[in-house]
Amino acid sequence: MSRWEPDSRGRLQEAALALYSERGFDQTTAAEIAARARLTERTFFRHFADKREVLFAGSELLREQIVSGVAGAPAGQSPIEAVARGLDVAAALLGEGRRDLTAQRQAVIAANPELRERELAKLADYAAAVAATLRQRGVGELQAILAAEAGMSVLRVALGRWASSDDDRSLPAIMTAALAELRAVTAGR
Amino acid sequence: MSRWEPDSRGRLQEAALALYSERGFDQTTAAEIAARARLTERTFFRHFADKREVLFAGSELLREQIVSGVAGAPAGQSPIEAVARGLDVAAALLGEGRRDLTAQRQAVIAANPELRERELAKLADYAAAVAATLRQRGVGELQAILAAEAGMSVLRVALGRWASSDDDRSLPAIMTAALAELRAVTAGR
Repeated sequence: MSRWEPDSRGRLQEAALALYSERGFDQTTAAEIAARARLTERTFFRHFADKREVLFAGSELLREQIVSGVAGAPAGQSPIEAVARGLDVAAALLGEGRRDLTAQRQAVIAANPELRERELAKLADYAAAVAATLRQRGVGELQAILAAEAGMSVLRVALGRWASSDDDRSLPAIMTAALAELRAVTAGR
Repeated sequence: MSRWEPDSRGRLQEAALALYSERGFDQTTAAEIAARARLTERTFFRHFADKREVLFAGSELLREQIVSGVAGAPAGQSPIEAVARGLDVAAALLGEGRRDLTAQRQAVIAANPELRERELAKLADYAAAVAATLRQRGVGELQAILAAEAGMSVLRVALGRWASSDDDRSLPAIMTAALAELRAVTAGR
């Protein structure tokens, strides 16, 4: 029946997040996700390598987009300004997603140590890619790493805040505010 | 023979790091570490739960020390100043260790994805503990997390620089300089 239904991928993601939230990640199988989405297991594996991949799909694209944001910053901009460009791109991309699904995803990851470690590794990977891009712009190694890691902290914190629904603003607005907060806090005010 | 030798623990750590560096972490067994240190496997397991623990021993103590540094900062100090107190304590503690062993440890961890994830989880755990301590000092949630994570970036970067021997200064001096670098980079100068 799947061929008649639009957006199998989106339905699989939604079904997976619902099941991970209800039963826990470890207690859910790909077959159950497919059944919940009224699709076949084969369709599941056409879209995702495994059930973990459902949570991390789009990571590569996001990293590329952040990096191209940083790389595309005007030549005169400081490292943190270039990082802010990358964050703007990330906020625009992630802000198109559904807030409730982002919240579910974060809760699922927070509840599972292995998924938490994978998420941290992903962010560390983004930070390394951003730092490498800054170095290509002539930024010193130490500054590049510190600016990149601070930027990824801002990304994580802003995304969490947006997903929590404690904050009604758009993700780009929250991201901008979080970066300003970082600048204020490190300035020691 | 172990009973006549001082510092079995230190010898085990040194032997483990040498073997992990030579053969790789996955290719080394606890029995081999013990043999290299001229100790019994039983002695190994009296000191460490497993071969991974050799690399992460002292993590708990370090976290407690960082947290007590932050908690002990004078009441009027800003979040980042309180974090700096925690970093001073960490630098004093870690700076007592051997630079060459720290370098070996970092290279072993960098070469192994699972160890890298564990190391990232450890730093995230420190950051969460520091953020919780800052919140107890009345710091807002967002500021607390951003200050804590930036502080842990500084810790990691400074430790890497010290271990690399590219920088002859003491760890406390490198840590102070790295924090100043963070403040400069986030200020966008």
